[in-house]
Amino acid sequence: MARPDDRAPDQLRPVRIQRGWLDHAEGSVLIEFGGTRVLCAASVQDSVPRWRRDSGLGWVTAEYAMLPRATHTRGERESVKGRLGGRTHEISRLIGRSLRAAIDFKALGENTVQLDCDVLQADGGTRTAAITGAYVALADAVTWMRQKGLVKGDPFVTSIAAISVGVVDGEARLDLCYEEDVAAETDMNVVCTGDGRFVEVQGTAEGQPFDRAELDALLDLAAGGCADLARLQAEALGA
Amino acid sequence: MARPDDRAPDQLRPVRIQRGWLDHAEGSVLIEFGGTRVLCAASVQDSVPRWRRDSGLGWVTAEYAMLPRATHTRGERESVKGRLGGRTHEISRLIGRSLRAAIDFKALGENTVQLDCDVLQADGGTRTAAITGAYVALADAVTWMRQKGLVKGDPFVTSIAAISVGVVDGEARLDLCYEEDVAAETDMNVVCTGDGRFVEVQGTAEGQPFDRAELDALLDLAAGGCADLARLQAEALGA
Amino acid sequence: MARPDDRAPDQLRPVRIQRGWLDHAEGSVLIEFGGTRVLCAASVQDSVPRWRRDSGLGWVTAEYAMLPRATHTRGERESVKGRLGGRTHEISRLIGRSLRAAIDFKALGENTVQLDCDVLQADGGTRTAAITGAYVALADAVTWMRQKGLVKGDPFVTSIAAISVGVVDGEARLDLCYEEDVAAETDMNVVCTGDGRFVEVQGTAEGQPFDRAELDALLDLAAGGCADLARLQAEALGA
Amino acid sequence: MARPDDRAPDQLRPVRIQRGWLDHAEGSVLIEFGGTRVLCAASVQDSVPRWRRDSGLGWVTAEYAMLPRATHTRGERESVKGRLGGRTHEISRLIGRSLRAAIDFKALGENTVQLDCDVLQADGGTRTAAITGAYVALADAVTWMRQKGLVKGDPFVTSIAAISVGVVDGEARLDLCYEEDVAAETDMNVVCTGDGRFVEVQGTAEGQPFDRAELDALLDLAAGGCADLARLQAEALGA
Amino acid sequence: MARPDDRAPDQLRPVRIQRGWLDHAEGSVLIEFGGTRVLCAASVQDSVPRWRRDSGLGWVTAEYAMLPRATHTRGERESVKGRLGGRTHEISRLIGRSLRAAIDFKALGENTVQLDCDVLQADGGTRTAAITGAYVALADAVTWMRQKGLVKGDPFVTSIAAISVGVVDGEARLDLCYEEDVAAETDMNVVCTGDGRFVEVQGTAEGQPFDRAELDALLDLAAGGCADLARLQAEALGA
Amino acid sequence: MARPDDRAPDQLRPVRIQRGWLDHAEGSVLIEFGGTRVLCAASVQDSVPRWRRDSGLGWVTAEYAMLPRATHTRGERESVKGRLGGRTHEISRLIGRSLRAAIDFKALGENTVQLDCDVLQADGGTRTAAITGAYVALADAVTWMRQKGLVKGDPFVTSIAAISVGVVDGEARLDLCYEEDVAAETDMNVVCTGDGRFVEVQGTAEGQPFDRAELDALLDLAAGGCADLARLQAEALGA
Repeated sequence: MARPDDRAPDQLRPVRIQRGWLDHAEGSVLIEFGGTRVLCAASVQDSVPRWRRDSGLGWVTAEYAMLPRATHTRGERESVKGRLGGRTHEISRLIGRSLRAAIDFKALGENTVQLDCDVLQADGGTRTAAITGAYVALADAVTWMRQKGLVKGDPFVTSIAAISVGVVDGEARLDLCYEEDVAAETDMNVVCTGDGRFVEVQGTAEGQPFDRAELDALLDLAAGGCADLARLQAEALGA
Repeated sequence: MARPDDRAPDQLRPVRIQRGWLDHAEGSVLIEFGGTRVLCAASVQDSVPRWRRDSGLGWVTAEYAMLPRATHTRGERESVKGRLGGRTHEISRLIGRSLRAAIDFKALGENTVQLDCDVLQADGGTRTAAITGAYVALADAVTWMRQKGLVKGDPFVTSIAAISVGVVDGEARLDLCYEEDVAAETDMNVVCTGDGRFVEVQGTAEGQPFDRAELDALLDLAAGGCADLARLQAEALGA
Repeated sequence: MARPDDRAPDQLRPVRIQRGWLDHAEGSVLIEFGGTRVLCAASVQDSVPRWRRDSGLGWVTAEYAMLPRATHTRGERESVKGRLGGRTHEISRLIGRSLRAAIDFKALGENTVQLDCDVLQADGGTRTAAITGAYVALADAVTWMRQKGLVKGDPFVTSIAAISVGVVDGEARLDLCYEEDVAAETDMNVVCTGDGRFVEVQGTAEGQPFDRAELDALLDLAAGGCADLARLQAEALGA
Repeated sequence: MARPDDRAPDQLRPVRIQRGWLDHAEGSVLIEFGGTRVLCAASVQDSVPRWRRDSGLGWVTAEYAMLPRATHTRGERESVKGRLGGRTHEISRLIGRSLRAAIDFKALGENTVQLDCDVLQADGGTRTAAITGAYVALADAVTWMRQKGLVKGDPFVTSIAAISVGVVDGEARLDLCYEEDVAAETDMNVVCTGDGRFVEVQGTAEGQPFDRAELDALLDLAAGGCADLARLQAEALGA
Repeated sequence: MARPDDRAPDQLRPVRIQRGWLDHAEGSVLIEFGGTRVLCAASVQDSVPRWRRDSGLGWVTAEYAMLPRATHTRGERESVKGRLGGRTHEISRLIGRSLRAAIDFKALGENTVQLDCDVLQADGGTRTAAITGAYVALADAVTWMRQKGLVKGDPFVTSIAAISVGVVDGEARLDLCYEEDVAAETDMNVVCTGDGRFVEVQGTAEGQPFDRAELDALLDLAAGGCADLARLQAEALGA
Repeated sequence: MARPDDRAPDQLRPVRIQRGWLDHAEGSVLIEFGGTRVLCAASVQDSVPRWRRDSGLGWVTAEYAMLPRATHTRGERESVKGRLGGRTHEISRLIGRSLRAAIDFKALGENTVQLDCDVLQADGGTRTAAITGAYVALADAVTWMRQKGLVKGDPFVTSIAAISVGVVDGEARLDLCYEEDVAAETDMNVVCTGDGRFVEVQGTAEGQPFDRAELDALLDLAAGGCADLARLQAEALGA
């Protein structure tokens, strides 16, 4: 069965990366994976959290959220409910961990970059778009820090990108849209470095458990997608 | 002393109204007043809150929020703090009250429109941009409801627009940007109907108390600005 | 149509101001506007909030609340709900802003006065009674500070009073009781200095939008009411 | 050593019970035990909590709170903190349990009386004043219910009063004021029925543990104090 | 009528005290009163809360909680509800107060022992089992502190034990199980020192108020039960 | 370098599964993976959450928590903080998802099993011990339901077990203890069905990103460990 937008199984949706979308943030990116649209802002502080002080090491942390009408039907605001949902917590932690893998904290010095990933519109893959966009925002924030003399040398050890893969109608597919995500038997999010190693692999059987062969096929697909994204990030950054 | 962007005292900042910015919302607008950028989404429900059931009357309500990096320095998320701040509450209530003045609830029937106004970037006048944009999103949502047959006839009794005015350097000025807002001695937000009557008048002496003459000058300025906005809204709606 | 208590349109309800109602507070007032009864306590601290330290400037802040059975039917406690309502937040902020207009913070020095306005019984106009009573409590607290030598010289730049006005049955009326408040087409709260200038003007169209002529009539009425209250405050303070 | 106000060890402070202090509540009392002043409001609902429906039985519940400046130094509002403190919870539960002992719930029918006890000024013994006053407010609310025909027959099985006792300077004393409460080695709150039986006995060693002889002396003292209060309640109710 | 487990009215349920149940805590006890099973952990900190700093005095505090399925039917987690219930607060405070009576805070020095009492299974008397077990855990933590040289000399002034008593079927009984607790007309929790003096006496009439003779009988019974527990504590501690 | 407890790289810690640890729960297990000790309780309800009503389908959900002194140093209670941490949320969701893979919800009918996994002591691998123990508790609860006639036929489609694996000192190791977990370069949790397929694969690079060969080695190791656990589960269940 064809994909809803007639893509090949190993084809990304159109990716669009707009840098400098915000006037005040030290780095900011509006990233689109098809209909998914995430605003990633990087904010620099010349200090670190209390538990990391006097270590000589920097820090990167992230918060993920969704606007109430990013989705097909409106969701209640977590600020109004007065508590963060488990999904929000989980994705915020994933984004933070993923981006920390990009950085040599000694080279960053005692500075913090806070990444805010706000989903303006959701059509599947919001967390992977967020990670991919946050890397570009982080790169711009680090450039800003180097220009200001806050950081000397290059703290980046790698670039970071992420993509979702899944088994839909028995077929391994790259970069699921919402319609496919809902129908997937297995759903996996993979975060890779620019040289193709893994930072996070999170696979979940939504319907049937999956065997090793299916897992291998999904990992191959994801590695290819992350390599494509790494190229698009480099282009966007004018490298 | 000249204004930061050399505008005349009674001149609006460039206003940009993009309709249909979201794929799922029944009405959505990205509105800009200069550097202020607010995403307004209107969500339709074919029911009303419990306390209004079986009244035959509809309802319009609003929530206002700001992304953490909308501002010069990052603000903490209210969802993370676990409680809404007073300012957020106050502005949400103002937007809801203002837009309810536009609607004949009998004609709307037992339907609710929820307006979400999320500030993506803040440069002064976020609540007035939110009200002005929310009107356009509400208009599109009502059109959608009429097309679906949820609403018969036109529930609008008027259009609604809002603008800030203030006294800066002793001069009454229209549509203050952030830099002027901070410096204002008196700050007023005015919400008007399309025919120039008042829905809300909220004036605050930030520095010196103001006298009747100053109040009159500010009201004149605001009335003119709202008339300009009403024209821009009509244009955006293709009327 | 006559007013529920047969007052003239420009007549205040009986106002009663009892100073020193509490033994421990540095200033305290039980103020009554007819059936509305608000206990205003002023608490002095010889320090200021963190963000204002080493500025040489003092601070005045306020919290407003209502006892659960102040009203016709019992309301749930906000402490039990675990969150402040928007109305409470909004009125607390209004009271704080209004009273800050009375004070020269340099003359106050790095001291804080916290104003607590607790509505024991509500019959319309609770926020305006709270502001009017809080001024008297603040005056007593400042006298106490001067006696203790915490403050030298007079930090007051003006007195502050507040009154509600509204259009009921097409008639502009002063100091609405609950019954009139519910029926008002337009509702306005006005805060004035002792010399008749404005600190806050908050007008809301509850039913029909209001035009400039109505607004002018309401402002005239409010200015007169505030002048009457300023006289009553001065009498209560034995000036 | 003499008591701060020269009372005999077994003497109550001046007790003042003002009925009908609020216009809207079905029963209301401002009770004073010396400088302690508690406003007790009884609110009637013609229904019971969900877990008690269709049982034919009524319910009585209570909430206790303190205004921020009831005390010598201002305390933070629990509504602002967003959570009830342990002490508030504990006293609310005590008041509810105590007053439920007064009522035959079958005779009350499926009605609820909510008792709100708000401490306007605190000088020791706030919980015992609250219980003693709440009984009178409850009595007035029940009279109101009988007049409205909500209740037939008399649901009261007894009156309820409460007093604190303690050992100060080695002497057993009745009705401790704040100064004595702070200095007490042992502190006990006793709730009695009108015929002298016990509903609650809560004794705590603040300093030294107490032996059986001390406990007996305190119980005697408390029983006498409660008998005095029962007479004052009856007088206030015009019995 | 016989007791559910055929005990004599003045007989404890089988008591089992297992020390060292946790590997990391400085003191830990799994205590059982029949089917009631409480895990008591004592955690040592070499500092005191801010309000007690530089006093030369130590501190002991406690938290009580119940696992959701400790009870016959599952209860909701307080961490999920986001707020502590009144009962939890009340018992935590009782445990802390009770254990503080065991300690000379000067001899403890500026150290804190935090007692965590988690009910793994509940069959009546959870708070009294918690206090009795917490004493043993506290004793082990103090021994640990003396071995580490944190404390010199013996800070204990007494041992502490607690038991519930109640009137069931007109009979005064010791150590109520859940079935008896639910049926009790009067319910009392008593905390005693090793030499038989009282630290806390909390008696509540669940059904009928109780008279002095009943109170005396319950106190006698409780004193005997606490003496038995003191012996069992000493045995467990190998004294 | 040898493992802290001299295990072979592919060797589990001693596993102990005690069924029926609680008297009231429909299924309960105290499971130990070495020093890690988790109490798993299964509670049955003969209904499903609102969103699943009238679907004919059952539900399984889980909550994970840790006692404050399960760890080397005491952690603050989430019930006291008033909010669940992200880690707690994430693990609760993982346990629920994993166990749902074991069940045919049609065969379960409109019944819910709530799984509570409370960590009494933590020494690495708490989430995998929780899942492995929860399966046994769930099996006992289902047996109970079948005996009561709530469920007809066998709703189990597979057994479920989970284990952690990681790279420590360059060596792939099974079932990391706390000391190894802290030192691991890569950390992976794997949930398998009884027949060796995957339900969840969650791998995280703590230090260096990992390549495909390392990932493959870890998956092999985990599959073997899960197979061992499946045998131990079957033995415990007397199959």
